Amino acid sequence: MMNRQVKLARRPVGLPQRADFRIEDAPAGEPGPGEVRVVMEVVSLDPAMRGWMSDAPNYAPPIAIGGVMRGYGAGRVDVSNHPDFEPGDAVVGAVGIQSVAVARGDQLLKVDTTKAPLARWIGGLGMTGRTAYFGTLDILKPTAGETMVVSAAAGSVGSIVGQICKMQGARVVGIAGGHDKCRHVVDVLGFDACVDYKAGHLARDLLAACPDGIDGDFENVGGDILDTVMAQMNVNGRIVICGLIAAYSANEPPPGPRNMRAILTRRLTIRGMVVSDWRERFGEANAALADWYAAGKLKLREDKPAYVV
Amino acid sequence: MMNRQVKLARRPVGLPQRADFRIEDAPAGEPGPGEVRVVMEVVSLDPAMRGWMSDAPNYAPPIAIGGVMRGYGAGRVDVSNHPDFEPGDAVVGAVGIQSVAVARGDQLLKVDTTKAPLARWIGGLGMTGRTAYFGTLDILKPTAGETMVVSAAAGSVGSIVGQICKMQGARVVGIAGGHDKCRHVVDVLGFDACVDYKAGHLARDLLAACPDGIDGDFENVGGDILDTVMAQMNVNGRIVICGLIAAYSANEPPPGPRNMRAILTRRLTIRGMVVSDWRERFGEANAALADWYAAGKLKLREDKPAYVV
Repeated sequence: MMNRQVKLARRPVGLPQRADFRIEDAPAGEPGPGEVRVVMEVVSLDPAMRGWMSDAPNYAPPIAIGGVMRGYGAGRVDVSNHPDFEPGDAVVGAVGIQSVAVARGDQLLKVDTTKAPLARWIGGLGMTGRTAYFGTLDILKPTAGETMVVSAAAGSVGSIVGQICKMQGARVVGIAGGHDKCRHVVDVLGFDACVDYKAGHLARDLLAACPDGIDGDFENVGGDILDTVMAQMNVNGRIVICGLIAAYSANEPPPGPRNMRAILTRRLTIRGMVVSDWRERFGEANAALADWYAAGKLKLREDKPAYVV
Repeated sequence: MMNRQVKLARRPVGLPQRADFRIEDAPAGEPGPGEVRVVMEVVSLDPAMRGWMSDAPNYAPPIAIGGVMRGYGAGRVDVSNHPDFEPGDAVVGAVGIQSVAVARGDQLLKVDTTKAPLARWIGGLGMTGRTAYFGTLDILKPTAGETMVVSAAAGSVGSIVGQICKMQGARVVGIAGGHDKCRHVVDVLGFDACVDYKAGHLARDLLAACPDGIDGDFENVGGDILDTVMAQMNVNGRIVICGLIAAYSANEPPPGPRNMRAILTRRLTIRGMVVSDWRERFGEANAALADWYAAGKLKLREDKPAYVV
């Protein structure tokens, strides 16, 4: 059995290019003791990947040049040397971008494809859903009557954050780029409003959408968007820093928010999160997300391009 | 009896100038029901005053043009129409910069001048001490073996923060401007080290003083100093934003920290504080600070220029 792998050929400068990667075929590995071989069916493309490609300090070591590109995927067990897995089991894990993965059993999570199709388990019911779950319920802590803002509101994490905020009774305002994304955020995901930052007057539009100020911000973007939100935060506001994609492909770190003074005068709390810190509680999040999804309370959209490599 | 008052004549641009203030004499007011008249002996000069003079959004409304300059002071009761106070009682309160103040009884705190002289109660045993107390114990939460950094380490708040951190068993590194301040911070206040930011290589010197990284930062300055500290923070680090004096006299808010990414990758928590939020617990702080002072565990330095107005 052959294994097709995507490897990092060099560190991208700015936006990643095709030539930053190399595709190689090699015989699939044989699983050792405690290991499992998985035939992958689908892999996930996440914003975090851009950070992993860089050698700037990060929460995970940089991917080595020539190493398999890091990534989450889902597939079915082919050979198992681990008591918890049998051939045919559906599993997910951060096993890298390759068609046949060999992984330790403790790196894999068995999922129930009768509850949701395989791809969903690396999407909204996977890392992005868990990130939204813990970031919202443990840090953002929306309450009834409060106004929450979510940037990249149509994105994989933001779209779920907003829906969980709504379940807690908060008013939720998204920020997204373009009319179509904003419509999706309001009409399908059920946010109370969505502001199109590409319209060019974010501060004014956000003020109109948040007449009582902003009590919480789930930040996926950073840069000018965060700065504009900070200026409109209420006293005791919370900001979850989940992503700073505005800076990921910048070669020089951009200047931070000019509204630092708001942190002091409005006693803001800003907290960065990396979902792996909640690893012990992943089961709790998976169960809640799957229940919400099955009950039709959580809308998930998949963007599934057909790549031929 | 005449009352000499310092009034705000106009809003300062940049550093405050003499002409931004006006000194006026008027007959002292008579206390109404529930009010107390206090002959002031000493007033406190605090960095926060610069913020109060500005009409930028703040935690307290700006001082009106022509209004008495806001400020903390201490004195002795002259006339009392409040059951808790008698003539001769030593009191402190935010009664403004004037020689004879009329205030409601609930705006004043009676202090014990047998424990510490009157001036100390608006210094280290007053607002600055309480700020250090709650910011350190409730937000920074230093523990044994951790490294804490304190900017403006020789200042009124920072000098106490560092001493409380030491009591909790943490390693404490100050940042201050100039050799003499740094010597004071180490030799008198007992910090483990102090870095002179005016020497021009803060990042290098801070790294040398904090070989295990920084677990907590009590920030009184902001700007480049905060940015440099953020770059050296450890995972799960805490940053208390108590002051941002680097920006107070700037007409344009300066760019924020470029190291925003550290918030994410190192899961930092940044929290702004204003001590009045702990008003209900001021008694607890006063008692602890006075005990430490009386026991010789808390060193306080006063800078007492003789102004003639």
